Amino acid sequence: MSATERVRAAYARLSEVDRPEVWITLRAEADLLAEAKEVDRRVEGGERLPLAGLLVAVKDNVDVAGLPTTAGCPSFAYRPERTAPAVARLVDAGALVLGKTNLDQFATGLVGTRSPYGAVRSALLPDRVSGGSSSGSAVAVALGVADIGVGTDTAGSGRVPAAFNGIVGIKPTLGLVPTTGVVPACRSYDAVTAFAATLDLAQRAIAVMTGPGDDPAAAPGPRRPPVRGRRPRGGRAGRGRARAAEPAARAAFAAAADRLGLPLREVDISPLLDAAALLYDGALVAERYQAVGEFIDGGAPDLDPSVRAIIGAARDLPAHALAADLARLDAVKAAGVLDGCDALLLPTAPEHPALAAVAADPIGVNRGLGTYTNFVNLLDLCAVAVPGGTADGGPFGVSVVARAFDDQVAIDVAARLTGEQAADPYPDTGTDLVVFG
Amino acid sequence: MSATERVRAAYARLSEVDRPEVWITLRAEADLLAEAKEVDRRVEGGERLPLAGLLVAVKDNVDVAGLPTTAGCPSFAYRPERTAPAVARLVDAGALVLGKTNLDQFATGLVGTRSPYGAVRSALLPDRVSGGSSSGSAVAVALGVADIGVGTDTAGSGRVPAAFNGIVGIKPTLGLVPTTGVVPACRSYDAVTAFAATLDLAQRAIAVMTGPGDDPAAAPGPRRPPVRGRRPRGGRAGRGRARAAEPAARAAFAAAADRLGLPLREVDISPLLDAAALLYDGALVAERYQAVGEFIDGGAPDLDPSVRAIIGAARDLPAHALAADLARLDAVKAAGVLDGCDALLLPTAPEHPALAAVAADPIGVNRGLGTYTNFVNLLDLCAVAVPGGTADGGPFGVSVVARAFDDQVAIDVAARLTGEQAADPYPDTGTDLVVFG
Repeated sequence: MSATERVRAAYARLSEVDRPEVWITLRAEADLLAEAKEVDRRVEGGERLPLAGLLVAVKDNVDVAGLPTTAGCPSFAYRPERTAPAVARLVDAGALVLGKTNLDQFATGLVGTRSPYGAVRSALLPDRVSGGSSSGSAVAVALGVADIGVGTDTAGSGRVPAAFNGIVGIKPTLGLVPTTGVVPACRSYDAVTAFAATLDLAQRAIAVMTGPGDDPAAAPGPRRPPVRGRRPRGGRAGRGRARAAEPAARAAFAAAADRLGLPLREVDISPLLDAAALLYDGALVAERYQAVGEFIDGGAPDLDPSVRAIIGAARDLPAHALAADLARLDAVKAAGVLDGCDALLLPTAPEHPALAAVAADPIGVNRGLGTYTNFVNLLDLCAVAVPGGTADGGPFGVSVVARAFDDQVAIDVAARLTGEQAADPYPDTGTDLVVFG
Repeated sequence: MSATERVRAAYARLSEVDRPEVWITLRAEADLLAEAKEVDRRVEGGERLPLAGLLVAVKDNVDVAGLPTTAGCPSFAYRPERTAPAVARLVDAGALVLGKTNLDQFATGLVGTRSPYGAVRSALLPDRVSGGSSSGSAVAVALGVADIGVGTDTAGSGRVPAAFNGIVGIKPTLGLVPTTGVVPACRSYDAVTAFAATLDLAQRAIAVMTGPGDDPAAAPGPRRPPVRGRRPRGGRAGRGRARAAEPAARAAFAAAADRLGLPLREVDISPLLDAAALLYDGALVAERYQAVGEFIDGGAPDLDPSVRAIIGAARDLPAHALAADLARLDAVKAAGVLDGCDALLLPTAPEHPALAAVAADPIGVNRGLGTYTNFVNLLDLCAVAVPGGTADGGPFGVSVVARAFDDQVAIDVAARLTGEQAADPYPDTGTDLVVFG
């Protein structure tokens, strides 16, 4: 399929799906067709473009030159002169940017409803939330409009929407993909992520986006070399048991764990859950205030009430409390978070709420959604979210969590669930994998 | 010289020097003699004890089992059950702990006068300050009482006292020597250090103390393998020019730079000095409040007024300001702090103040002393302070600063100044060293 054909198909699909809330800025088909023609010309000329003609939906807190960046807040919008390196690398590889997508404002939320551009509905169950904050990018992929969704993830924003829309989301190790040109949420814990219908494509997108950035102020940058392949090492065995919050999810999780076909053992994840609580209940949210607090205090009329409340409250947190929380995180990290194993299988989210449930309790429902995702970035882990069956009448997602820079470990384990890697599996008798329990 | 002879000599020297303010707890000679006898027995038995019979003065914010830890504040004192691993390793290598030494209270100061146990006088010029906060450990070594001084260093506390007492001080890369059993100053930036009369002995002490700790909560721990030897790589040339604050120091610095016998080029250190200002003028001091703020707020009668003012003021710093300062530090680090070179030569301190000057302006004078040391730990650098000639009628110290884990680079360069490494020097035409200017 040529790039031109892909563009025509995408716009045809766009008109079918009638999900205007997915987009904040949608580019004109004629502009895409002109770019597609150029890509087709280069490919015909023998150029190797690994993502030739693939359509990309970019979360609207990530800069694309020529398009406004709103971060889900019209009055915050600016027009960047430069495309974020993560996106520029996709374009250099032949991908075409279809537009900018809706998000929970300032990437503060896991629901997908905190936006003046409208609540984003799940691609599969329109009465349920899309998940967020990378809501539009995930739904654009799930609907078959875009091939690759660019998201960001601080607390699960690149994984929860994958779960709620039946697709794959990769949250790479912090620093692998530069956050230059991204509106910060919590600067120290922000990652650029990729959604795709398949693990294979999501992995290819992440691989293209990976590499040192050029703006030293934007992010700490990789502290070790980029993604390396490593097999989970042999080790302990055991049988996993699911304990997801909802009964339906428990059965789905147990089935997914079985489907892995690996010996499993249970691990106590309570230290991880305690660490996760720090993200919103502790002082780390001060980083959100540092990023956009002055703007929030300006009282713009288009602020989401939940976002305003969360970020605004961070103004008065004391610095010594932040110092204490950072010390707690270091202690959890130093104690070893995967109980000596290489990977951890978890539900991506404990439940998939209806839009009405979120509207009734926007902060409470949101908080619960991050149970199994919040701790990942705080503890410098990487994660891959993949479809894990069905539960409660909809898609159920599971995540494979691994140590920093063990991204390939997480991908290889996740591939056992998506069935994309049949060749050369690990021996069943020695993989050091755990499930929560 | 046997351990027993060393102990007798140390106590003889102790009685000569009449510097009671150096010690907070001095152990009984009989106890030391008993331990020395055991060391002598083991050495005679053929055991290899690399520090056999060497006497150690331990800063009184570092735990030694059986002795109180005061951190320079009698009402804060506690009796630890365990010796800090850094000190335990010295003892395991045959060293003997002579006692616990005076310090700027809670390691908050670079002067050596902020202690209810008395202002510590410079070993060489008793009307001038010893420097701090590791005041007693440095003076004990400079007076020839102790062989090794254990200090700590957050802002220069293991280097400024070396300069003011004509000895060597090594501040290793953060995390190499465990900070377990050390009263935190700024947890993220605290290092255990070593003083000695020679670079060779200081290096041996650091080597013995280096290694992972066993208390995960105490420190982040090494993020890369321990000290590795590496020669400064060849590269640019140029001529250094000194610009120390005081004219006398300028001449001494220029002479030290000449004595290096290496091609030098100047570098603009203003980004480093700006970063340094964050340590006390910014929100990083919140880590000091996190460590002992609750105790300080209790209003103990033996608090040093300057220390109480500095730490107490940190209570009200906002968390978003700390987040902003951490972002600034990351930006400076990412921009590259040594201008592409492997090491930086600096004065250790801009001046050597009199006790009277510090008494007249305790906070102002102290602040200036950290000009060339404050930024080192904040930017994750290592440093070696060595004697660098004389200035203003007293000792003048210079420091070699290098990147994290390039400790051996700093030591090798410093050895050119102490004359302890004559063999196999680097070719004069290719060392990438800079001086500040």
